[in-house]
Amino acid sequence: MQEIERKFLVNSEAFKEEAYKSTRISQGFLNSNKLRTVRIRITDDKGFLTIKGKSSVSGLSRLEWETEISKAEAKPLLLLCEPGQIEKTRFYINVGEHIFEVDEFYGENQGLIVAEVELSSEDEVFEKPDWLGKEVTGDVKYYNSMLSKQPYSKW
Amino acid sequence: MQEIERKFLVNSEAFKEEAYKSTRISQGFLNSNKLRTVRIRITDDKGFLTIKGKSSVSGLSRLEWETEISKAEAKPLLLLCEPGQIEKTRFYINVGEHIFEVDEFYGENQGLIVAEVELSSEDEVFEKPDWLGKEVTGDVKYYNSMLSKQPYSKW
Repeated sequence: MQEIERKFLVNSEAFKEEAYKSTRISQGFLNSNKLRTVRIRITDDKGFLTIKGKSSVSGLSRLEWETEISKAEAKPLLLLCEPGQIEKTRFYINVGEHIFEVDEFYGENQGLIVAEVELSSEDEVFEKPDWLGKEVTGDVKYYNSMLSKQPYSKW
Repeated sequence: MQEIERKFLVNSEAFKEEAYKSTRISQGFLNSNKLRTVRIRITDDKGFLTIKGKSSVSGLSRLEWETEISKAEAKPLLLLCEPGQIEKTRFYINVGEHIFEVDEFYGENQGLIVAEVELSSEDEVFEKPDWLGKEVTGDVKYYNSMLSKQPYSKW
């Protein structure tokens, strides 16, 4: 249940040509308090309920628990969420031994593109593609739970 | 997913002799905002995650969604909850055509006993046992999410 992720800004749209898959995502938060977020997500054809705990001191690892739910169950729960629904497309890209997930945001977060890579330990080495920009791991303003309350267009 | 419940105080401990089952419950809230509560519950042998929406104007019906999870999954999620864990025993009692659930609270809510009956419509008739006291349906201070923040012993 521990998740280790590093997060980066993205410099160009070159990643789109390298993506082997993309998924449209709508999500909201029943609780956006960063000590214990509760997220409802709807993808193309599935629903998910995800609970994340507070980050560790390093900002790299967080408790994460997720369960798949039907889209029919997820819809009324998404309507129940706090105002500030997140709309984005997630692109999946193979880079060396790892998969990068790149989120292109819409609506009030239009213009923001963020890449994440999941690691098995905090010091694991990974290949950095050319389109990868500044690291923003642990910066709470890039948390989706914060983007729902303080969107990129208002920074 | 609509839940219609009426809630009452309890006048005596006579209900205990009539109970056909009782269960020890520990629970906490990942979100106790009454617009959208997210509850983690551990009973004798099971775990549950429950999401409840805002009450209707009458205070009788609320959106409710629940999924069973393992006790092993529920334990770290309960630790993640807001301070103010609820400890209680729930007694189940047949009264006429209905089942009353009576909660006897412990810890900071010691002394509080509350009965609930679930109905299929807001105007459904039901038999009232002798030990049933004043109706408190819709009174937010008796919500478990409120009892976790403002326990009975501090009223």
